[in-house]
Amino acid sequence: MQNDVVYLDHAATTPLDERVLEAMLPHLGRAPNGSPRGNPSSLHAPGVFAREAIEDARASVAQLVGADDSGEILFTAGGTESDNLAVLGLAAADPDKKHVVISAVEHPAVREAAGRLGAAGYEVTSIGVDADGLVSPAELAGALHSDTVLAAVMWANNEVGAVQPIEEIAAICYEAGVPLHVDAVQAAGRLPIDVSRIPVSTLALSAHKLYGPQGVGALYVRGGVDLEPVLFGGGQEKGLRSGTENVAGIAGFGEAARLAFEELEERTRHEEALRETLISGVTGIPGVRLNGHREKRLSSNVHVSVEGVEAESLVLFLDALGCAVGSGSACASSTAGHKASPVLLAMSRTPEEAISSIRITVGKDTTQEEVTSFLDSCATAIAQLRELSPLYTGKS
Amino acid sequence: MQNDVVYLDHAATTPLDERVLEAMLPHLGRAPNGSPRGNPSSLHAPGVFAREAIEDARASVAQLVGADDSGEILFTAGGTESDNLAVLGLAAADPDKKHVVISAVEHPAVREAAGRLGAAGYEVTSIGVDADGLVSPAELAGALHSDTVLAAVMWANNEVGAVQPIEEIAAICYEAGVPLHVDAVQAAGRLPIDVSRIPVSTLALSAHKLYGPQGVGALYVRGGVDLEPVLFGGGQEKGLRSGTENVAGIAGFGEAARLAFEELEERTRHEEALRETLISGVTGIPGVRLNGHREKRLSSNVHVSVEGVEAESLVLFLDALGCAVGSGSACASSTAGHKASPVLLAMSRTPEEAISSIRITVGKDTTQEEVTSFLDSCATAIAQLRELSPLYTGKS
Repeated sequence: MQNDVVYLDHAATTPLDERVLEAMLPHLGRAPNGSPRGNPSSLHAPGVFAREAIEDARASVAQLVGADDSGEILFTAGGTESDNLAVLGLAAADPDKKHVVISAVEHPAVREAAGRLGAAGYEVTSIGVDADGLVSPAELAGALHSDTVLAAVMWANNEVGAVQPIEEIAAICYEAGVPLHVDAVQAAGRLPIDVSRIPVSTLALSAHKLYGPQGVGALYVRGGVDLEPVLFGGGQEKGLRSGTENVAGIAGFGEAARLAFEELEERTRHEEALRETLISGVTGIPGVRLNGHREKRLSSNVHVSVEGVEAESLVLFLDALGCAVGSGSACASSTAGHKASPVLLAMSRTPEEAISSIRITVGKDTTQEEVTSFLDSCATAIAQLRELSPLYTGKS
Repeated sequence: MQNDVVYLDHAATTPLDERVLEAMLPHLGRAPNGSPRGNPSSLHAPGVFAREAIEDARASVAQLVGADDSGEILFTAGGTESDNLAVLGLAAADPDKKHVVISAVEHPAVREAAGRLGAAGYEVTSIGVDADGLVSPAELAGALHSDTVLAAVMWANNEVGAVQPIEEIAAICYEAGVPLHVDAVQAAGRLPIDVSRIPVSTLALSAHKLYGPQGVGALYVRGGVDLEPVLFGGGQEKGLRSGTENVAGIAGFGEAARLAFEELEERTRHEEALRETLISGVTGIPGVRLNGHREKRLSSNVHVSVEGVEAESLVLFLDALGCAVGSGSACASSTAGHKASPVLLAMSRTPEEAISSIRITVGKDTTQEEVTSFLDSCATAIAQLRELSPLYTGKS
């Protein structure tokens, strides 16, 4: 029964916190008061029980992002739906404007939604990033004009962990009167987020990236911001997200958000120490190069290109040694795994570097022992794969 | 800890089956092999564990609807998303055709999606129903023409439980070369469904209507049918439904589908007996009239108009007596609760009858004792509300 996998792929998904599961179980048929599960739209007691759980969760998620009014939080089925709702919903709400600005390193959920607008005749401007993965606020400012319906810049990148200057970017968009959507899926629970101070219009969250359940997300929508729905039906979530609510999932998200808010500093400090051990250990191996800004990066993220090694082989070799890490982004389906990451290409990495990159992401429960054990396995795996590689020229 | 609510609102949501919860727990941090939760797109062992659970569930859902190829099942976040994906996705896949046919009693997820097409310039034909809630196949046949991109008729109605002649309707659409979408959210688990025999193009399912988790649905998409996605991103589910999969929810849906398939006859027989007791008991009260076809109705469904009583008051009165029933459809958010049901109006009920209607829906675990107890409470509640009503003229 012992779990002996060294799990270092927290950017793909985090373990479900046991406290979160406890908060879900009352809505999975194990209510302490014996209430049967209800539909939150129902008038009777089981419906009220479900509805109250949703509103409690909404307050916890609002607190996590600094929203004064929990009515500014909409629950969705995940980060992708939240990103889609923001990008497509902001565009549809102001249909006379036909220009969209996104960064070159957005999550596919933003990039593909913007691409869909492009296919519908919108002009889509992609703002490049520097070699560290950072967006230039000046370049963004230059791209906004009177026809711009929205800009989208993620808070922290899901692959290389680069943390964008969101405060500066939000100020620029606010000045220009352009709604800003921020994908904070990786940032939430790792960086302090305060929408009362930073004038984003919408902000996307995903529960399973912060120890909550898979299949639940949220979109913060600032009061007064107009948005059109992308799913149509019974009119739940103020008409902006129809469909019977995932009550257990939402209750779990609420608890995960509450814990993330309470434990934020402690988690970040813990992760940063592990990250530094990992970075010095892994970049100590010849031909291993860190991707993403050295300081402006998530506490959890180490991303490296490994010369002479194909990422997928390295991930599978490490898996055989009991270590779980990511190749590129797990947020794209595995069928897309062989393509070079657009994020790395945007950072001026070569396609060879891009397909030689692995992502090592720690979590709140990762231990120094696990990191040490991983570093041993990693050195072994890289050495053995390089021995086998006809392409690697740095052999001893 | 004893649950003493008589829960008769199974059409709104069913209790989660304990066996379903057991199938979910391995993906909620309690894997017997100790595996941490993985992202199904990840290459490593936790990713494979998640991916295999999804494929097992896909096979079980395929079996429930008679699909030969489990690749024809796509997982979504629920019935609403499945209906939206079908209606909007079929229309987008054949953009030259600009005519849509739906029945007048469709779930809001279909009706509102079709309305969205209408707002975008499509012609939308709504096929009426008779006083029993049944669509006329001949009227449907007459509405189809060469510009018709899709027809949508639900298998069984979520309010009055009327079961449509889907076999005949599917044959007509097939002959006409028009893709048919069927919302089988209420039918699945209560009626045998066999897409290998009935030529629907797409068919929507929801887990929480058949003792599975909330927040998970599926869309059957027949091989060869073209569909465009409504959510864009990482390309999961063959590019038709991006977003990290809700692994625990999907595993639960799989188990719920497996059990529904195995226990279908037994459940239906059990429910029908309860339904008959309810119908004779409740229509024995003066001024109570059954809505929906007497025989062509779901095993679980009793829907009545109660003269002189406002539905919401009756639901709340019954709630106070420990009985949970529905007013109209709980699939619409509670803010919509005061409007007369479009389904009942389409059946030529008056607005007064429509707002005096309650839905009583039994489930596989409902007992005859609960039904008897409910009938007592219902008689009491109706009598007392009528005493208070200035409008009711039938007082003794």
